[in-house]
Amino acid sequence: MKKVSVFAPASVANISCGFDVLGLCLDNVGDTLHIEKSATPGIRITEIIGQKLPLETEKNVAGVAALALLKDYGQNVGFTIKLEKGIKPGSGIGSSAASAAGAVVGINHLLSNPYSKSELISFAMEGERIACGSAHADNVSPVILGGFTLVRSLDPLDVIRLNTPLELVATIIHPEIEVKTADARAVLLDKLHLKQAVAQTANLGALVTGLFKEDYELIRRSLVDHIVEPVRSVLIPGFQQLKDNANAAGALGTGISGSGPSVFALSKGMETAHNVAKAMEEVYQKIGVPYETHISIINNEGVKIV
Amino acid sequence: MKKVSVFAPASVANISCGFDVLGLCLDNVGDTLHIEKSATPGIRITEIIGQKLPLETEKNVAGVAALALLKDYGQNVGFTIKLEKGIKPGSGIGSSAASAAGAVVGINHLLSNPYSKSELISFAMEGERIACGSAHADNVSPVILGGFTLVRSLDPLDVIRLNTPLELVATIIHPEIEVKTADARAVLLDKLHLKQAVAQTANLGALVTGLFKEDYELIRRSLVDHIVEPVRSVLIPGFQQLKDNANAAGALGTGISGSGPSVFALSKGMETAHNVAKAMEEVYQKIGVPYETHISIINNEGVKIV
Repeated sequence: MKKVSVFAPASVANISCGFDVLGLCLDNVGDTLHIEKSATPGIRITEIIGQKLPLETEKNVAGVAALALLKDYGQNVGFTIKLEKGIKPGSGIGSSAASAAGAVVGINHLLSNPYSKSELISFAMEGERIACGSAHADNVSPVILGGFTLVRSLDPLDVIRLNTPLELVATIIHPEIEVKTADARAVLLDKLHLKQAVAQTANLGALVTGLFKEDYELIRRSLVDHIVEPVRSVLIPGFQQLKDNANAAGALGTGISGSGPSVFALSKGMETAHNVAKAMEEVYQKIGVPYETHISIINNEGVKIV
Repeated sequence: MKKVSVFAPASVANISCGFDVLGLCLDNVGDTLHIEKSATPGIRITEIIGQKLPLETEKNVAGVAALALLKDYGQNVGFTIKLEKGIKPGSGIGSSAASAAGAVVGINHLLSNPYSKSELISFAMEGERIACGSAHADNVSPVILGGFTLVRSLDPLDVIRLNTPLELVATIIHPEIEVKTADARAVLLDKLHLKQAVAQTANLGALVTGLFKEDYELIRRSLVDHIVEPVRSVLIPGFQQLKDNANAAGALGTGISGSGPSVFALSKGMETAHNVAKAMEEVYQKIGVPYETHISIINNEGVKIV
């Protein structure tokens, strides 16, 4: 096989009490990468459609992730990548992770799959390093593994796939304002009380249990974050109103996607997810913030070969 | 039915990364309570065998828990309780929780079960309040529900039953020294770094996953506590050596049971659990600390009607 096209989905990281730990893979929004074997060794980004992003391999997240794979592979192979961006950079739903994950999954496929999914996560994390300044795994993990993932440890890398209740649907609203990851990091408090940490572990343990037992009411009770959300939500216009409206419309829970500004809600069933979207859109229509909405089931496969 | 005998097992709380959240029910060590309907309204503790503990109802954990139930029940009923203590108070394996849980489960049985297990936990917690100064649920929950339990919230009370992998066996070593719960509380640091809290949530999420997937290697990797164990373990003689020996003998993980001084280890299979016991006993034989050892499967039922 000489060429392949992959669909690399968007993702939600920092799911409420799962700050820095828990992520999920979306299904119907993502980047498409067309990857082709090339006689010239190395990686060339030939075209980027839909967004203005650097074509230089070393400055492009897909390029950097692909180079990390090639460096490990060792042999003199080369690939070109044409990138169709379906995710807006800076939206908080894993734009860089999708490009990085798509590149390494596609190249691995063309090399007849020498690498495990866990190794692919490591390579994709190198793309995240240039995008965010740190090689985090919360977005690339669900994009590569599908479903819900928990990053237990970064060093050594230990990522665990959780169960995905089939009726869960995500609603994402993206206020079209810029929140820099660095700013979202800066507002975080470095220290917290032991009691807060205990409450967070309790909720995360309960949320993981809710996912395994497919207990939607337990998921509802545990989708809370008393540590990060209170400080970060000030960067997101109308956050409390979005949350109140979404929950009133039946959402199981609502939180900040990644480091924002997108806000996600999880619902049981497509109908509720649509009602939740409408309820959140009303907030931005009223205060005049431009927005984009996505409604998506949870993708249990991750990156797909098209 | 006029009388009943119940076996109320010991328990392990504060399981590693599940500080204040995660507990498990032991099987072959516990208190036995003989409870009988009485013409005299109220609760009378008629006899306590095996330990010196107060007979006055209001000063006895079983008495206080039973009174909490009776107060809610409202009708003019009375019971006598004869308590055979199989668990040493202050050992860190839920001595007060067993007595409190046994009393309310036994009385509920004699009243033809008007109360749910969750309500019984609330009553038993009142016994814990006089024993420890706070109405915590980490020990009474596994004793009443059986297996592994997660206390998501105390107010409102929300306790979740987890899965118990069948081959898990607990080894407990109890150094016969006194560690007061108040002292064990006092050494705790009130504040911690966000990074530490994230690592703890990651490990607890992974541990809960390991329990559901019955993935013993994942349980091994997640049975860690970088927050409480480092400060509390100084109160336990030879802690690091116990842990090193237990893990070298094949334990999945080792930690402080409750607020100590007992140390628990979890192993896959009875043979390993016995090897772990021997390895831990060697430490106390060498340094001359008197000890008692228990090896127990995880009890999935909780308090048993005998």
